[in-house]
Amino acid sequence: MTAEQAPPSGSGSGPTAPSPSPAPGPRSASRERGGGAERVGVEQHLREVEALLGPVLAGRGVERVRLDDALDRVLAADLLAPVDLPSFRSSQMDGYAVHADDVAGASTGAPVVLPVVAEIPAGPGTPAVLAPGTAARIMTGAVVPEGSDAVVPVEDTDAARFGAPVSGAARGSVGTQVGVLTPRGAGELVRDVGSDVRTGDRVLVAGTLLGPQHLAAAASCGVPALDVRARVRVAVVSTGTEVVGPGEDAAPGQVFDANLHGLAAAARRAGAEVVLTGRTGDDPRELAALLARAAAEADLVVTSGGVSQGAYEVVKDTLGEDVTFRSVAMQPGGPQGLGTHHGTPILTFPGNPVSAQVSFAVFARPALERAAGRLPQEDERRAVTGTLDSPPGKRQMLRGRTRPGGTVEVVGGAGSHLVATMASADVLIEVPEGVGHVAAGEALRVVRL
Amino acid sequence: MTAEQAPPSGSGSGPTAPSPSPAPGPRSASRERGGGAERVGVEQHLREVEALLGPVLAGRGVERVRLDDALDRVLAADLLAPVDLPSFRSSQMDGYAVHADDVAGASTGAPVVLPVVAEIPAGPGTPAVLAPGTAARIMTGAVVPEGSDAVVPVEDTDAARFGAPVSGAARGSVGTQVGVLTPRGAGELVRDVGSDVRTGDRVLVAGTLLGPQHLAAAASCGVPALDVRARVRVAVVSTGTEVVGPGEDAAPGQVFDANLHGLAAAARRAGAEVVLTGRTGDDPRELAALLARAAAEADLVVTSGGVSQGAYEVVKDTLGEDVTFRSVAMQPGGPQGLGTHHGTPILTFPGNPVSAQVSFAVFARPALERAAGRLPQEDERRAVTGTLDSPPGKRQMLRGRTRPGGTVEVVGGAGSHLVATMASADVLIEVPEGVGHVAAGEALRVVRL
Repeated sequence: MTAEQAPPSGSGSGPTAPSPSPAPGPRSASRERGGGAERVGVEQHLREVEALLGPVLAGRGVERVRLDDALDRVLAADLLAPVDLPSFRSSQMDGYAVHADDVAGASTGAPVVLPVVAEIPAGPGTPAVLAPGTAARIMTGAVVPEGSDAVVPVEDTDAARFGAPVSGAARGSVGTQVGVLTPRGAGELVRDVGSDVRTGDRVLVAGTLLGPQHLAAAASCGVPALDVRARVRVAVVSTGTEVVGPGEDAAPGQVFDANLHGLAAAARRAGAEVVLTGRTGDDPRELAALLARAAAEADLVVTSGGVSQGAYEVVKDTLGEDVTFRSVAMQPGGPQGLGTHHGTPILTFPGNPVSAQVSFAVFARPALERAAGRLPQEDERRAVTGTLDSPPGKRQMLRGRTRPGGTVEVVGGAGSHLVATMASADVLIEVPEGVGHVAAGEALRVVRL
Repeated sequence: MTAEQAPPSGSGSGPTAPSPSPAPGPRSASRERGGGAERVGVEQHLREVEALLGPVLAGRGVERVRLDDALDRVLAADLLAPVDLPSFRSSQMDGYAVHADDVAGASTGAPVVLPVVAEIPAGPGTPAVLAPGTAARIMTGAVVPEGSDAVVPVEDTDAARFGAPVSGAARGSVGTQVGVLTPRGAGELVRDVGSDVRTGDRVLVAGTLLGPQHLAAAASCGVPALDVRARVRVAVVSTGTEVVGPGEDAAPGQVFDANLHGLAAAARRAGAEVVLTGRTGDDPRELAALLARAAAEADLVVTSGGVSQGAYEVVKDTLGEDVTFRSVAMQPGGPQGLGTHHGTPILTFPGNPVSAQVSFAVFARPALERAAGRLPQEDERRAVTGTLDSPPGKRQMLRGRTRPGGTVEVVGGAGSHLVATMASADVLIEVPEGVGHVAAGEALRVVRL
């Protein structure tokens, strides 16, 4: 059995779909499976994929987009604060701006009574200097007047609470007096200029995948647009006379192609723009024309199928020496190819839909994220719910589902099947090379789908 | 100090931005904070938000979209398989289709030699019935001929491996013979019709947020389009003369508005369509006109700010009795309002950008997801890296960052600040009501930002 077809022993998975073994054609006799096909580890293949994609994709450059268009884009350069925040001294609470010295002796038994000389709402405007011995009613976020160095919260005064019904000139309003019941030291409840962010502080780190909180932070600094990485343009090509598109008629011997939509969606999730999708049978001229167009329009071409159909290997025949076909020590997804066709990087994935998704998640996604300048993601590790056995010498990527409490279970019991299993998985669970047995409760790396 | 302004004791957070206390206006004297403002728990407020949004948003209905447009949409109804998969008996490997009875006695020492009468590639077509005592060369995924009930992998024969260079009529090709070295029982390496999915099997569950693996599963079944929930239309309104848009000039006393972009992005991440964003000062007529337009265009209106400016409470004055303003036992994000304005549900959030983000994550997002029919999400719990103290009687939502190994740490040390803290958080860490102390290593619920 090939790596691709061996069911994960001990995982309880049922039969997997056919997924052909790597079998290079005559033009690549030196890489023949029968005669010693190239076999490489997962990390080596990933490094080569990254090396292949890195320079080309880095050349995609940077574009400036408005905040409204920046969600889920990758920040291209650190965002340094262009201003101090706050840009003016502001009150942290509703209360009274005072001179701290004036209220140093205040207590409930002996309030310090001050005339209220002004009312300062939040909003534009510069209030008058506050004279010693006076107080100004002030709202949260309003400018603290020059002269004042502390705010006494309304709760610590004998004034009516703001917003409560007022009849006539309530105590504490302008023109009346307020009794301060608690002392406040210099600086208390006053947010100083630059106390949140100073001009030049790094607010966002290059490589951040921009979420709502990052856009809010940029907006807080008055920044209306951000420099983000241009999206990588991806072309997705499905091959094989045995596949037809969903919605088409499938003759006996034909299966519906899951990969055009599955890989395009995976590419979009990875932040790429899908510029071309196409499906061909096994006419090499048709495929050659499609691949030429894909290479011209995209920064990366991804194919599925056609690499390992025994004697019928249209992708291999068409790509010839442009692509290195090899067997990667991974299950599923062993038969892989990488190269450059018409100057554009190309990755060839196996046609089995699960293998194709795993291939994308393990090779294309990290390479695209790295090429896009994404910050390295922390590995996520989760405890598994049951014991696992794994064949030696291969990295096994099991479909898994997150359980309450954050553990993960392998999906695909004896009675379950490829399509249903694929649909119910939300993670891939990685059993590393060299690990033959995993006990229940042990933590393994997971890759989110 | 109000809940909103109390720094999370023990969390090491620095000063937080001003976030006004709830102080209802004259029209809602019965809910006055000073005189006993309505105070409710987080769960009660969430239930009321869900009850408010549920019926209205459920009325948004369903739309059918092509698979290419279905990524990140919510499936409206279970997808039942319209066909059997496989739809024909197919070979699991490259090898030879045989009659199992013929090879029952095969061994390496005594191969069973059969004439190779046909070659069956993957692809459309119905092969001829296989006569007893013969074999057909067959590729992975190809139709197993009638008569044959087992496939012998090429590795278990004396034939040349497929794809290897062939000179002349290699052993195992059509017209020659093949020696079978290992017996295979009836059904082995033959995928039966419907063995993966039977017509009528549930392939996808209603409420699924559609990802690449789900689209691949639908495509595998030949389904070209899916019924998804119509997107909820959201309007986002920022209020207050103290806020200006990023890119505008900020006078002394004015701050840049983080919430229009922050909340719009959060709404998009929750699967909503943002149909209107608008910002007004504190002119009630201007706000009333904007809110009327928002209510007409959207299924949900979200406002920020203007609910608690002491004497200047434009949102409260404009919405009047349409909205219940209250203090929710949550920190930050205590001052909340909910109601129906011009027939459209409205939520009023505090203006502090962190409070607004927390409010959206805790109230709007789960309500939107529930209204959209999303499957309930499993709670995610993570161990915290340090000890935490929390004020009694309130649910505290701390900004946190995921660490290697999956623990979370509170962000916002003594020297850090609102904007930077907001930008560096990827989760909210929930310290439940009634929990005053959390030891390092204890697991708390986290909400992804």
